[in-house]
Order: sequence, then structure tokens, then C-alpha cells
Amino acid sequence: MTSPVTVLGISNAIVDVLAHVDDETLAAIGAPKGSMTLIDQEQAEKIYALMGPATEMSGGSVANTIANLANLGGKSAYIGCVADDQLGRIFVHDMQSLGVDVVLAPIDDGAPTARSYILISPGGERTMNTYLGACMELSPAHISESAIAGAGLVLLEGYIWDNPHGPAAAGEAMRLAQENGAKVGLTLSDSYCVDRHRDAFAEAIEHRVQMVFANEKEIISLLGTDSFEDAVAKTRELETLFVLTRSEKGSVIVNNQGEVIQAAVPVAKVVDATGAGDAYIAGFLYGWTTGLPLAESAQLGSEYAARVIQQVGPRLAKTI
Amino acid sequence: MTSPVTVLGISNAIVDVLAHVDDETLAAIGAPKGSMTLIDQEQAEKIYALMGPATEMSGGSVANTIANLANLGGKSAYIGCVADDQLGRIFVHDMQSLGVDVVLAPIDDGAPTARSYILISPGGERTMNTYLGACMELSPAHISESAIAGAGLVLLEGYIWDNPHGPAAAGEAMRLAQENGAKVGLTLSDSYCVDRHRDAFAEAIEHRVQMVFANEKEIISLLGTDSFEDAVAKTRELETLFVLTRSEKGSVIVNNQGEVIQAAVPVAKVVDATGAGDAYIAGFLYGWTTGLPLAESAQLGSEYAARVIQQVGPRLAKTI
Repeated sequence: MTSPVTVLGISNAIVDVLAHVDDETLAAIGAPKGSMTLIDQEQAEKIYALMGPATEMSGGSVANTIANLANLGGKSAYIGCVADDQLGRIFVHDMQSLGVDVVLAPIDDGAPTARSYILISPGGERTMNTYLGACMELSPAHISESAIAGAGLVLLEGYIWDNPHGPAAAGEAMRLAQENGAKVGLTLSDSYCVDRHRDAFAEAIEHRVQMVFANEKEIISLLGTDSFEDAVAKTRELETLFVLTRSEKGSVIVNNQGEVIQAAVPVAKVVDATGAGDAYIAGFLYGWTTGLPLAESAQLGSEYAARVIQQVGPRLAKTI
Repeated sequence: MTSPVTVLGISNAIVDVLAHVDDETLAAIGAPKGSMTLIDQEQAEKIYALMGPATEMSGGSVANTIANLANLGGKSAYIGCVADDQLGRIFVHDMQSLGVDVVLAPIDDGAPTARSYILISPGGERTMNTYLGACMELSPAHISESAIAGAGLVLLEGYIWDNPHGPAAAGEAMRLAQENGAKVGLTLSDSYCVDRHRDAFAEAIEHRVQMVFANEKEIISLLGTDSFEDAVAKTRELETLFVLTRSEKGSVIVNNQGEVIQAAVPVAKVVDATGAGDAYIAGFLYGWTTGLPLAESAQLGSEYAARVIQQVGPRLAKTI
């Protein structure tokens, strides 16, 4: 095993606010069940007022991957914008307590720390309404060259393209990674996000990204194919490595060098499927950063995802 | 069934911050396993820095009782001090979303909202370190006469006697309750709290309190007896109603008018015993405020406690 390299996550730093809702409340909020919607401060206040008692915990897609990677013992660092408020301190504490090197100081003016109101329906479905708040401040000025120079992989999430200076910040991160010999990974976040930024993602993947993480819907949306099989066929012609997760159907890792088919690890009971993809990426990267072959990294991804979906919440409870 | 009366809780308004810890971390923090310790801001920062990733949720003993009573459909109101900060807004939101009439406006200067760092050991034991923060501001000025006049029962917790103006605030609440024809309930909080305030509690119970809630350790500490049986024998001579909870041994409700022995409701598996006593009080008061006899109220207390200990956390997930 080679000496492990550091993964630097750059993403929206979000605190999750979880509550159970009935269908009438969901209708009053006006969010389609299972959707992820961006909301403004006014909508955030309206939704929070309609929500029942809640539980707060640090979240965010790539932030969850980074936290899980650190929990596994992997080396990781993180860049993302929080405000100088209590939710911001909670977010930073939770990352640092796992050993993540959090690069950014909180921003002391402007919008509060981002929060995602996660509404859990009686059937267990989750509807997310996300107020980006301080996340929207992310700009090229926050992309620390020394942090990128210290990383073996810079992991970006598609969601950051939704921020006003997000595309510029992502561009700067990819440029600095190339200059400093770090690889770039991109997770596509969700298929609606791909719809919003398809051309920008395609351009980045062609020129700057060595590793793409996506689920079936996302890769189909990105490549404009009719089926997952057709999407995989397209990726077989590309140099970029595609790590494609398929829930209970496992995962496929593919590029023009070859293909790995990985089965999912069966679990007795899925308690909460939230964050399964982010957890898979953490397990996969734990293997990849320590120099394991792709097949073994994929196995670690499947195993870690299986652990996370057997508990509530997208970050595995700290291993103690 | 008569028209239900309102229970007004007056207590420390606390947000719980829960994390798993190993024994070495607990030793570094210096807290005896299973203890409840009051800490200052400096200690709070030290402990938080040593803690792993955490989950935040509204807590506090009588606040949990009031939230659970509201969740059952009981009428309730609440007085307690929070700061004008995010944790304060979380606390107030969670109460209001259950229909609790929260009487106090947040205090906009001074210490932040109280938090209890709850350290969960590998065996499931919970060690609490509580920074009282804004709670310590509670004073007679906060005891709203109109809130007390609207209540059938004013429920105080022993912990508020730990605050600088807590005894005066409690005294004012008891005086106004007497003037306005409301009954007064007192929960003894914990046996160390009884040690700190035994004389004050005894004095209050003799003159101002119609209903005392205690577990075995607390009632033994209060009455200075050698055994629970001796403590019960003493309560048989008193006019005050004693509602005594005994975990898996059920509960005893006793005064000089008679005695009810209530069995615990058996559960297949205790997931988290935290807040069982507070949940029992919620169920009991739901019965009592709707005019049910003591035996039926005790049965409701046992049933609700059984539900709460089969889930994580002291407040039952909202019934939807």
C-alpha cells in the first residue's frame, strides 16, 4: 500500500434540519415529495414555521463524503463557506472532530449558514428544501492553492455550480489542481442539477476532470442517452473514469481502459437510504487514496454504503 | 371528561448536543460516567472541542415533559430563558411547532442559549455536561401572571433553583399560582439537585406544592430515609401528592388520602432510557389535566414512558 493521498472536498456546507411531516403539511409547503428544491430566506422561514420539532446535524453531499472518509481513517481536507454563527460552528466542529483539515474561516457578514429542511414523509421519503445562505459566497478567492497543492484529489460537487460565483470557484479549483498535479473528481449531485449545468459539466469533464461520480439518472441526463446501458457504452470511449452507482444493483467503474462490475453488499433492512451514494464514494476513495486497485476500492465503497443505509443519517456514527 | 386544564412548565430551556465518546475521551473531560455536571463557558468550549460529531435537538427535563404533553394533545404553555441566537430559535420553534404557548421572548444580550453536552459511552450510558448560559437569567420578572392565571398546574423543575435568581423566580411562580387558584407541581430533577436545595424544596412542598414528581433516589434524598419503603411511609402522612417513578418497578402515587400502585408497561427492548421519568409525567398529566382518576393517569404515564424508551431521545417523534 502506498502512502495515502489527501482528498480535498469543495462543496456546499449545509446543516440538515430533519423533521417528520404529514402529506397535508407537504402540500402546504408545496414541495413535490422526494424533490430537492432551492429556497430563499423568506421561503425558508415559511417552511420552518410549518415544520414540526426537528433534529439538527451537519450535512451536505460532498461534506458527508469527506466526513465519512475521515471516519474511515482517510486523509481529508475541506473548503466550503459557513457564516460566523452557531450552525456554522456546529458544521466546522463536526468536520474537525473527525480530523478533517477545514481550510476556511467563517464569513462574518452576510447570510447565515446554509440549512436544508429535510421533510420525512410517513413512508420514509425525504423532501429537501435547501436555503444556501452563506454557501452562495463561495468564490475563487476561497480556493486555497496550498490546500490544493497538498491534495491528491480535489472533489467537487455539481451543486456548487448553483452558486453565483460557484462556476468560477470550481474553475479556479480545477485550474490549480492541474497546475499542482492533483486529480479532480466531480460528483453530479442530482439529475436536476445536471439539467441546469449540463454543458458546463461536459466541458469540465472533457478537459479538467479525471473521475466522475454519478448515479443512473445523473449519467443518463449528462450523456443524453435512453438507458443506463447506452450511457455506459459511451463512457467506454472516454479517458475520464466514471464511477457509477446503482443502489441495490451495485456499481460500475468504467473508462476506455476497462470496466469493473461491483455487486451491492446485501443488507437485512434498509433503515435510511439517504446518502448511500456519498457513503459509497467515501469507501471507494478510502481504497483509491491508499493505492488499492479499482475492484477493491469498489468493494470498500459497497461495504461502507451498506453500513450507512442500516442507520439513520448520511454520516456513519463515529467508530469508537 | 372535564375540559382539560393547561400545564405551564417553568424550567431550564436547553438544547441537547449528543455525541458518542470512548472512555479515554470521557477521562480527558474528567466527568464521572453517568453524572450530570454544571459547567462554565470555558469548560463548555473545552468539552465541545474534545467531542466527536454531534446531533442537536431541543431538550431540558420539564421542557421535554411539556413537549411530550403537547404531542399527546394536552394543553401546555412554557416559560424559560433562551438567547436571541440560532439554538434559542431552534428551542422555541420545536416547542411552538407542537402547539406549546411559549411565553417568553428571547433575551437579546448576555450569554448564549444553554446547551447540554451529552456524551454517550459505548455501553449506552449518558454523561451530561450542562452550560446554563441564558437559563441563568430566569428571574421573577419573567414569571407572567397572565400565563399562570391561565394554567391549571404550574410545573417547576428542581434545576431552576441552581440559577442565581431561580429560587426567587420559583417563589414568585408559586405565590402567583396560589393567588390565581393554580396548583403547583415540582419535579425534583436529580438526587444531587436535591442535596443542593433540600431545605428549600422541603419548605416549598410544605407550603406551596400540591404535587411532587420524583424517582427513588430523589425521594430518599429529600426525606432522608434509608429505603424507598420508608420514604413512601412518610408520604402517607402528607397532604401533598407524591408521584414516584421506579423504572421497571412501575410507579407509586401516594398521599394521606390513599395510594395507587402502577406497574410498568413491559417493553421488548429498551433503546434509550433517557427521559423516561419526564415522559411518564407527560402521560400522567395528560390524564390528570383531562380529569381522569389517578390510577388511569398513572396507566397513561406508564404507557407513554414505554413508548419513549423504545426510541432514541427523550421526546417522542411527532405523532403524524
